[in-house]
This record gives sequence, structure tokens and C-alpha cells, in this order.
Amino acid sequence: MPTIVVDVMPKAELLDPQGKAVSGALSRLGKEAFTDVRIGKRFELTVEGEVTDEILAEAQRIADDILSNSVIEDVVGIEVVE
Amino acid sequence: MPTIVVDVMPKAELLDPQGKAVSGALSRLGKEAFTDVRIGKRFELTVEGEVTDEILAEAQRIADDILSNSVIEDVVGIEVVE
Repeated sequence: MPTIVVDVMPKAELLDPQGKAVSGALSRLGKEAFTDVRIGKRFELTVEGEVTDEILAEAQRIADDILSNSVIEDVVGIEVVE
Repeated sequence: MPTIVVDVMPKAELLDPQGKAVSGALSRLGKEAFTDVRIGKRFELTVEGEVTDEILAEAQRIADDILSNSVIEDVVGIEVVE
């Protein structure tokens, strides 16, 4: 069944404390290749049947209105995966 | 700067209560096109300079050992984004 994947990340201008914690842990473990970590959410919406343009537009609305908080987060991607 | 994106999802055989809650909310709102919702995490690891095979292998190890809990989660994707 097709799945619509929605990626939501904290806005670039906001501090991401969870990401900062992981980033600090990585550098304490000597993993210096990674200079920053940010942590967001990945939603997988399962669709019964075909993904029409209408369903994709509905997913976009849901992503903006329900799955993300537009004050602190951006929807960075919506894609259909079979 | 290049970014390595790591996607982590709850294992398929486990209940995902957060996803179930969103799924229930969507159907109460009349959005019947989406039969299931699962919620995972998206990590963005910023890399200074070029992403070598070595750094990508390190990211894979970090994804398996630190960013995900292999008892309840699967790493479903690692990709480099410019």
C-alpha cells in the first residue's frame, strides 16, 4: 500500500535542545565529524488505494495544520513511497 | 554544508501509540483517506567538509548504536543531502 511520508523539522532559527544533547554526546564520544545534530519527526501516512492529487493536497493540509506546529516547526518534505 | 539524514521508525510489529492517536484524530476529523499513521524520528547530522565513505560508515554505526533503540526501532534510511 502506498505511504505518504511527511518530514517535520524544528525551524532553523530555533534552538533544538534534544539535537544539542545528541550533538554534545557525539563529541564527548570522540565522533568529531558531525558538527551539529537536529532532530525532527517523520510521519508515515498509509493510504488505501491510489494516491490521487486530491489525497496528496489533503496530506499537505494535514501536515501544515495537524502534524506540525508552524510556530516552531517546518514541513520539510512530503513524498509518496510505494 | 552536507547533511546526513537518518530516519528511524518504530518496528512494524510494535504498536505505535502516538501514531494510533494521530490516526484516530484524523478519522474523527473525517479524513478517511489515511488508514494508518506511524511516527518516527528524522535526524539531520551536519558534516563539516566532504562526506567520505568513512564518515558515512561512522554515521551508520551511530544510527544503529546511538540514535535508535534496536529493540523497538529500525533505521529505515541513511542518505546524504547537500
